[in-house]
Amino acid sequence: MTHDVYERQGFGAALLPQPPFGLLVVDFVNGFVDPDRFGGGNCAEAADRVQELLRQARARRWPVAHSRIVFQDDGADANVFAAKVPRLLGLTERAPASAIIDALTPAAGELVVRKTVPSAFFGTGLAAWLAGRGVRTLLVAGATTSGCVRASVVDAMSWGFRPIVVTDCVGDRSLQAHESSLFDMGQKYATALPRDDFLDALLKA
Amino acid sequence: MTHDVYERQGFGAALLPQPPFGLLVVDFVNGFVDPDRFGGGNCAEAADRVQELLRQARARRWPVAHSRIVFQDDGADANVFAAKVPRLLGLTERAPASAIIDALTPAAGELVVRKTVPSAFFGTGLAAWLAGRGVRTLLVAGATTSGCVRASVVDAMSWGFRPIVVTDCVGDRSLQAHESSLFDMGQKYATALPRDDFLDALLKA
Amino acid sequence: MTHDVYERQGFGAALLPQPPFGLLVVDFVNGFVDPDRFGGGNCAEAADRVQELLRQARARRWPVAHSRIVFQDDGADANVFAAKVPRLLGLTERAPASAIIDALTPAAGELVVRKTVPSAFFGTGLAAWLAGRGVRTLLVAGATTSGCVRASVVDAMSWGFRPIVVTDCVGDRSLQAHESSLFDMGQKYATALPRDDFLDALLKA
Amino acid sequence: MTHDVYERQGFGAALLPQPPFGLLVVDFVNGFVDPDRFGGGNCAEAADRVQELLRQARARRWPVAHSRIVFQDDGADANVFAAKVPRLLGLTERAPASAIIDALTPAAGELVVRKTVPSAFFGTGLAAWLAGRGVRTLLVAGATTSGCVRASVVDAMSWGFRPIVVTDCVGDRSLQAHESSLFDMGQKYATALPRDDFLDALLKA
Repeated sequence: MTHDVYERQGFGAALLPQPPFGLLVVDFVNGFVDPDRFGGGNCAEAADRVQELLRQARARRWPVAHSRIVFQDDGADANVFAAKVPRLLGLTERAPASAIIDALTPAAGELVVRKTVPSAFFGTGLAAWLAGRGVRTLLVAGATTSGCVRASVVDAMSWGFRPIVVTDCVGDRSLQAHESSLFDMGQKYATALPRDDFLDALLKA
Repeated sequence: MTHDVYERQGFGAALLPQPPFGLLVVDFVNGFVDPDRFGGGNCAEAADRVQELLRQARARRWPVAHSRIVFQDDGADANVFAAKVPRLLGLTERAPASAIIDALTPAAGELVVRKTVPSAFFGTGLAAWLAGRGVRTLLVAGATTSGCVRASVVDAMSWGFRPIVVTDCVGDRSLQAHESSLFDMGQKYATALPRDDFLDALLKA
Repeated sequence: MTHDVYERQGFGAALLPQPPFGLLVVDFVNGFVDPDRFGGGNCAEAADRVQELLRQARARRWPVAHSRIVFQDDGADANVFAAKVPRLLGLTERAPASAIIDALTPAAGELVVRKTVPSAFFGTGLAAWLAGRGVRTLLVAGATTSGCVRASVVDAMSWGFRPIVVTDCVGDRSLQAHESSLFDMGQKYATALPRDDFLDALLKA
Repeated sequence: MTHDVYERQGFGAALLPQPPFGLLVVDFVNGFVDPDRFGGGNCAEAADRVQELLRQARARRWPVAHSRIVFQDDGADANVFAAKVPRLLGLTERAPASAIIDALTPAAGELVVRKTVPSAFFGTGLAAWLAGRGVRTLLVAGATTSGCVRASVVDAMSWGFRPIVVTDCVGDRSLQAHESSLFDMGQKYATALPRDDFLDALLKA
């Protein structure tokens, strides 16, 4: 049995959350909740659940960051990611598909990074922004679980931040890919737990 | 059906290989072929198959790089990855478990990077070394498929290199995680194909 | 004598240019040619001389990239650089001071990166974009010589690209800082030579 | 007058130190205090003065990191920096010239990063290590002021840490380059002040 191997080899140790906290919302733009573009599966449902998470983060004055995939209008920054998924090039600065969904519109003081690759940390100022604010533990929500969320979680960990993947605030077009990546992240990179379990634990702490 | 979604949304486009080529062998150290440490599944078998790939790369004088996970003897560089998988801290400079397996011993002129996180690109000189040698397409072998290989493939793509995951030269302790990550990589980040298919195509090119 | 030390210790070896070439124009925006903002010294004169360099780069179809300093309208991404130089926060997306000067308007297919720190490579997709296009040698022009140009040259070298600082196409508000940084770069990081010397050598090569 | 321009344009604002503190000692290895290799000028004197700074950092249990330039024995990682300064390739793992000087031997728990470029942050785990320990302000000592210290200070700032260059704990083979870089750093990137001024301010805080 697979899980036995992980346990026997010492994977999946608990990762204690450590304040200060920050919140990263990965790519919850129109195009990633729309099943006809890059959404589908449980993406829209996850986006709905992020609203309360965002409210809580704002109420506690945590640093909040959002990411968007944005390519130049002329496609000058086309890259390997766009070669694998050509329709990504349609996510230009003013395309409705690249706009953060209304329900999660960034507030003043929140960071918004543009990226052209999966990780919200790669080629952006995100890691420096979090370090400059002393963030130690990073809540991660967004889409997709097996894509940009996972890549961002791996990088969050690599950059020294303790990632918490909020399991019902991340979504994927494929439920199988969603589950598989949640398992991998929980074993190797992050704490994986549902939103309300996290918020309840926070109140008791 | 999951695969339908990917096709409908335009994922999985072909990524043409473009010379010059390079080869990255991720973490094929003793500890990652040993089922009692971090190996198991199809890791050892994949390591065997890398030998011929390495021979071909050397015969063609491609730049070849290897990665090893190495923590300081005093554990001063313990990080979030080590918090999730505490036994990684045993992979110190002179521990047999952190030594590259005999069959794949680096030759003179090959790069060997030490790392403490999944990606062979993160916190190492790998991207600069490949760029400095003009590499455009990077063959990736090693362990584990869902861990350090996948993280390295995502970063290879993000750094502008075209990744080819050699499907029978990468291994994982979990065959399910192996398959799941090969699927994700083939859809979004890389060309995924078996060693001999790649080598045959190379001869015909 | 200072120069003796450098020679005796083996600094300043020649760095052979190696095609493919690329061109980076650092921060030639209105605010960096305006002596009342961040310009002055020989900045405007250098900007004039970049026009011919840009024409040559375009005629040869080299990859061309430009950088701009851009902070969010709400200052959410204020950082240590902005703490040292508070007026940088005025360089917002639509501020005239952050717009590339008319004479150097980017053409279709040219990369434009936004940054909030000195180096055009830091927190941007520049290195990946150059690697993805196989660039080996990077011409660097822009402002200021001792600031964003120098930081970009150090990073270009660190990322594996051979930098050529075009000495009369870079400018600084302080001629002393300009000269001092040109000397340092020529000894340790780059080839430093005037525009026409480079273009003449190119014709003969 | 040059300084007037900086003041008029709003450079050189005060940067408040903010705990937690960390200390970075850049490249104080035998080869960088030896005037026949890469030292000379005020390097040896600066190294002497770092001893007390290091004692204070240890007494306060600040995270302390050291960097060394180390190339592979076979020179496989030769890069552009080594092309400009070929003798750097002699700084191999076991060469006495690449060993940290006895007076500053790292203690257990201190990070030691190997690098092949000027910045101690580039291609190393330093930024992640500091972020993972919550460091907000980074004291920087080492050699040379205009080379690896300056590149590390620019990167420290870019990564979100507040740099304090300890002016009498950094040294350079050229006093002119030393002064010129201290000026630039104080205007644009860091607080620049002598060791005892900093320690006195710390006691009063």
